[in-house]
Amino acid sequence: MTTITALELVHDDLKRVEEKMRGGVAVHYEQLGMVLDHLLNSGGKRLRPALVLMATRFGAADYEKSIALAAAVEMLHTATLVHDDVVDNALVRRGNPTLNATWPRGATILAGDYLFARAANLAAETENVRIISIFSNTLMVICGGELDQIFSGFGRTPTLDEYHRRIYAKTASLFAAGTETGAILSGLPEAQVQALREYGHHLGMAFQILDDVLDFTGDQAKLGKPVANDLRHGIITLPVILFLENRPDHPTIERILARETPEDSEIMAVVDEIRASGAVEAAVDRARQFTAQAAEALRLLPDNPYRRAMQSLAHFVVERSV
Amino acid sequence: MTTITALELVHDDLKRVEEKMRGGVAVHYEQLGMVLDHLLNSGGKRLRPALVLMATRFGAADYEKSIALAAAVEMLHTATLVHDDVVDNALVRRGNPTLNATWPRGATILAGDYLFARAANLAAETENVRIISIFSNTLMVICGGELDQIFSGFGRTPTLDEYHRRIYAKTASLFAAGTETGAILSGLPEAQVQALREYGHHLGMAFQILDDVLDFTGDQAKLGKPVANDLRHGIITLPVILFLENRPDHPTIERILARETPEDSEIMAVVDEIRASGAVEAAVDRARQFTAQAAEALRLLPDNPYRRAMQSLAHFVVERSV
Repeated sequence: MTTITALELVHDDLKRVEEKMRGGVAVHYEQLGMVLDHLLNSGGKRLRPALVLMATRFGAADYEKSIALAAAVEMLHTATLVHDDVVDNALVRRGNPTLNATWPRGATILAGDYLFARAANLAAETENVRIISIFSNTLMVICGGELDQIFSGFGRTPTLDEYHRRIYAKTASLFAAGTETGAILSGLPEAQVQALREYGHHLGMAFQILDDVLDFTGDQAKLGKPVANDLRHGIITLPVILFLENRPDHPTIERILARETPEDSEIMAVVDEIRASGAVEAAVDRARQFTAQAAEALRLLPDNPYRRAMQSLAHFVVERSV
Repeated sequence: MTTITALELVHDDLKRVEEKMRGGVAVHYEQLGMVLDHLLNSGGKRLRPALVLMATRFGAADYEKSIALAAAVEMLHTATLVHDDVVDNALVRRGNPTLNATWPRGATILAGDYLFARAANLAAETENVRIISIFSNTLMVICGGELDQIFSGFGRTPTLDEYHRRIYAKTASLFAAGTETGAILSGLPEAQVQALREYGHHLGMAFQILDDVLDFTGDQAKLGKPVANDLRHGIITLPVILFLENRPDHPTIERILARETPEDSEIMAVVDEIRASGAVEAAVDRARQFTAQAAEALRLLPDNPYRRAMQSLAHFVVERSV
């Protein structure tokens, strides 16, 4: 089964999720409707809601509630992107101007808040208190992780444990919450709920590692932002951590950690060194270990088209980048 | 019954609410704990959680859930203040430096998000889906109202209807949600739930009008910010709306609406004119009409110390300022 067919399994339902996301915004907030259109049209693979929907198919979830839950997860993700763009003062995302680039800052912050509230509202449509609690807990994990990064991010290279904790907070926590709540909604036995949570968790870890790898292997046109964008902002990701294991105290990286701003040519020289060092391949290998764990977690679940789709997705997440 | 004794009815429970608000923040987010301490120590009358607690006493609410609900309402309020201070770039609130003044902007935005998530989490502790939905809906109303104000705020004087809608979104919606959800938690019949909602709604309207009046009648030392702070920022509140009914096209106000920045002496001259015009007293009269409606709504409820406390609070809200 190819990845295309994996996502095609829930293709029509994803259309319903988009409709659900566009609906429900109070009519007289015309500006907000435009924002939502802008955000929804600017792409994204809808991987998170697809995972939620697949997780709901292992049992007997109410269809409308499964659409609301998938929309809630994608809306929460969208809201965090809106605020991230303000926090990072990012002007472009996925090649499109950000809300932050076109709106007053205050309005962008408030629009993000509105989307958080709408996400919570959609989660409440499941009428399941456990799901709702997981949802708000996940937002606490995401924000807490970002705060941690702001207060401890600069100045030194994170340990592998710190890196794992950071990408869990940033990405894997919402993947895990999505598959876990999907499983809860479909009324699965607890062991299978935890298996789907594990799957989402490990898939999310791999997904973020590969995203961090793409920051070094992609080119500016494809990334929609400069190569090594994280490194330029003092954010040390897995390829750099692994590179530094064999090449500690690299002078350019030391300068970045000291909040200096090296020339672009110096940055690109480090990128070349990292690419030549094998650190990128080593990072991809670690991502493969996570997808293997994700696939392993699925063994507790009945064999059906959704399980096979999830397995193929785990494969795709790694292979898209190599 | 004086206002002091009205709040004393729930004094011990409010201590529990504060403990609840300080708890639950993940231990390793040390910075966040400090922020919460800072925010909780910087005062506020805890009027919102007191109203929630009183509303829960008309029936048989679970005690721990009533504390969680009151904490959720105050936490939501606190989170909106944190973001408001970023949106307005305010450096001082209640005479204390804001988080915005001492932290990086990005961290302040994320801290607000974290507090929103924690508020949602506390609301979920009620395990009542209706309460949780009201909660997220209220946040949508608050943010939507602020966005409306940003996009339509400058340039012209709002109608009375627009002003009412704005102060409902800004203040009365959370008062109403607090008393309504308190009533739901205590299992009251629907008519009494709606009566307590009405009470909170009208009290909140009066509260905000009086806050807007204080902007003109207070002095800088008492307000902790310049007199006529809203007017200086182009926000036209009730005293100005009523003043303009008899004195349309006031040149200084016209200039403010055109986004010019008059001299302080010109602003203070307008303030004197407004004070002398009777517009302040007329605004207070309108607030009294709202508190009268709030008191009227209470008639559907059994006569008990909590109803009497709520009546005395409605009285206090107006009389504190005149």
